[in-house]
Amino acid sequence: MHINKNDFPILQQQMHQHDMVYLDNAATSQKPQVVIDAITKYYQLSNANVHRGIYELSQHATEAYEQARDKVTAFLHAQQREEVLFTRGTTESLNWIACTYGIANVHDGDEIVLSYMEHHANIVPWQQLAKKVNAKLKYIALNEDGTLNMADAQKQITSRTKIVAVAHASNVLGVVNPIKKLADLAHQQGAVIVVDGAQSTPHMPVDVQQIQADFFAFSGHKMLGPMGIGVLYGKRQLLEAMPPAQFGGEMIERVGLLDATFQPLPWKFEAGTPNVAGAIGLGVAIDYLNQIGMDNVQQHEKDLVNYILPKLSEIDGVRVYGPQAANHSGVIAFNVDQLHPHDLATALDQQGVAIRAGHHCAQPLMHYLNASATARASFYIYNTMADADKLVDSIMATKEYFNHGIRSFG
Amino acid sequence: MHINKNDFPILQQQMHQHDMVYLDNAATSQKPQVVIDAITKYYQLSNANVHRGIYELSQHATEAYEQARDKVTAFLHAQQREEVLFTRGTTESLNWIACTYGIANVHDGDEIVLSYMEHHANIVPWQQLAKKVNAKLKYIALNEDGTLNMADAQKQITSRTKIVAVAHASNVLGVVNPIKKLADLAHQQGAVIVVDGAQSTPHMPVDVQQIQADFFAFSGHKMLGPMGIGVLYGKRQLLEAMPPAQFGGEMIERVGLLDATFQPLPWKFEAGTPNVAGAIGLGVAIDYLNQIGMDNVQQHEKDLVNYILPKLSEIDGVRVYGPQAANHSGVIAFNVDQLHPHDLATALDQQGVAIRAGHHCAQPLMHYLNASATARASFYIYNTMADADKLVDSIMATKEYFNHGIRSFG
Repeated sequence: MHINKNDFPILQQQMHQHDMVYLDNAATSQKPQVVIDAITKYYQLSNANVHRGIYELSQHATEAYEQARDKVTAFLHAQQREEVLFTRGTTESLNWIACTYGIANVHDGDEIVLSYMEHHANIVPWQQLAKKVNAKLKYIALNEDGTLNMADAQKQITSRTKIVAVAHASNVLGVVNPIKKLADLAHQQGAVIVVDGAQSTPHMPVDVQQIQADFFAFSGHKMLGPMGIGVLYGKRQLLEAMPPAQFGGEMIERVGLLDATFQPLPWKFEAGTPNVAGAIGLGVAIDYLNQIGMDNVQQHEKDLVNYILPKLSEIDGVRVYGPQAANHSGVIAFNVDQLHPHDLATALDQQGVAIRAGHHCAQPLMHYLNASATARASFYIYNTMADADKLVDSIMATKEYFNHGIRSFG
Repeated sequence: MHINKNDFPILQQQMHQHDMVYLDNAATSQKPQVVIDAITKYYQLSNANVHRGIYELSQHATEAYEQARDKVTAFLHAQQREEVLFTRGTTESLNWIACTYGIANVHDGDEIVLSYMEHHANIVPWQQLAKKVNAKLKYIALNEDGTLNMADAQKQITSRTKIVAVAHASNVLGVVNPIKKLADLAHQQGAVIVVDGAQSTPHMPVDVQQIQADFFAFSGHKMLGPMGIGVLYGKRQLLEAMPPAQFGGEMIERVGLLDATFQPLPWKFEAGTPNVAGAIGLGVAIDYLNQIGMDNVQQHEKDLVNYILPKLSEIDGVRVYGPQAANHSGVIAFNVDQLHPHDLATALDQQGVAIRAGHHCAQPLMHYLNASATARASFYIYNTMADADKLVDSIMATKEYFNHGIRSFG
């Protein structure tokens, strides 16, 4: 796979006088110039409010917005464009399901099944729902290597289960979960499966029909797209039966003094002026990824992980979380003996390497791993073997520094 | 006031071979190049996820995002930055109040007071709340000229009232409401006042303390800023007592398996990756408006309205809604005898003039006015007397065409 790093202006920068190695892609990705240009072009040539305007500009904006929906539909292999709703991002998408489908379908004594590797965005909305309706939260255990314990999944998912909510890919462990199998377990019990696709959609081919997701959420900004735009996919019959999450202009059909009726899908869920520029930018990000091919994106990250994971694991005192290289996605969480991950991240920053340190919005997982925090390096299409080497070298240099007091990384 | 139209690239365009006259600013405004540049620059130089990162890039992004909050705080004359929450836009802001403050504070038999001139975004969320908690919706009547009937306001707001939700400025009638007086009526009865500031914030100085707003909502995209970003202002003690509207990363303090605690204000309400680029763009839009001065913005629109309203009213068969020119804001709704507003808008589009036609997301108002739809021209800082003339001329030409079958507007 050939990616031109020059497509990404921000990567041409220096950080603390070093060429920047950006390894915080699980938090947010950088944007190729074509995506930035699409936003600029939209505001310079086509900006208007959508759906409601009769004049030419508004019609162009509406077409571009709805074309972006078509691109997402194809990218997810969804059956119908009506199943694709634009949201602010994964967090909003998951909250919408909890506060609409959840409130309508989860009742006293029912169960919601999560896993120990979930991001807070796929935990806290369900906690709030469970408290409201007096439902029970259950967590699927993990195996030693961080993968989901499918025997435990089978045990946790019962006839009382109404919702199974699981990440497609972990934002910490480098694990990709067998969603199709979980969906089968859920469906056998009459439950729906909600998939947090924030860490999978940018990095691998996604087919919501093949994995049998009932709901699937992701964010644009983690996949080369702009901030403030995301998607909630839902099976049509579920979305049809669901009340809207927000109310206002655009999503209504008729408004009387005391009540209102709503538009058909997908507009029923899109209250207010949508983020048209965001949707268009996401569409161009999808075009860019499609040109590379999502199989190639996935392979590139596999190659990087196969290359770096053994090197990283060989460093004295480094503990890598998650499975072996062959099954490890491009998110690598690790700790270095005697070094707090925040100190490590600070030292790496001084050497031009951007990684994350902390709980990664996954405190229950941290607790489960018996770690208060970890360092995390996460790779994407523009990262190279040289970036991987730089990570390893800078960790070694940091260890040296902390062990022997060498005063500069210069 | 001097505005350089060249600051707005989109206004240099032609529409149907005519210089474009954009008069749909109540739907969305156009963006000056400095705002577009700010977005570009952010993605090219500083893009990172905020608050959580240790590395330089993330710290820059966090600073820029929080500086944008400071700019909004000053622009609204809010007392504290903690009272300013970033949302997706006015619609989301209003929905948040209804589904958090509303659910917690409005109970069986309580009353919510709206006005007949509200936008659907300030009606439908309250309808849904009222249905959920069995509260009663009441509407303040309007005077002949479209202004709020304050005697009726006094009658409608009673000791049963928990929420008064009113637009600061109408998106149809060109009316600016006396919020301070309404706030006094509400506060005398122990109710809070929720102000839909979508149509005021872009067009006049706003001082949330002076008008005594308890909550105040507006959108970035109607005031030169990007789409997908808006603000909810709330008095600190109200926001402190309110549960968050969405849950996920960023807004939590600690997450256990069954429950979570939340960050202090303002972050408690900002779940997930925020629209950093959007907030920064809004901040630059505010800088641009401040350079002009909001008093000057308001005066410019007054001048335009004083100029055009008499001309428009003089056209045979034209009915203008709302008050006399002296009290009329830059939003002008009107109808032309024998001409459906959609046909009028289509004909104007052919002549390069972008206006809106329809119910303007205000069906109860349309019903109240006994109009199924109206045409609407709405002005902003970049509109000129020549634009106003063009509107009048094109309405005359359209009338000619429909009356006498002249075949082209050429």
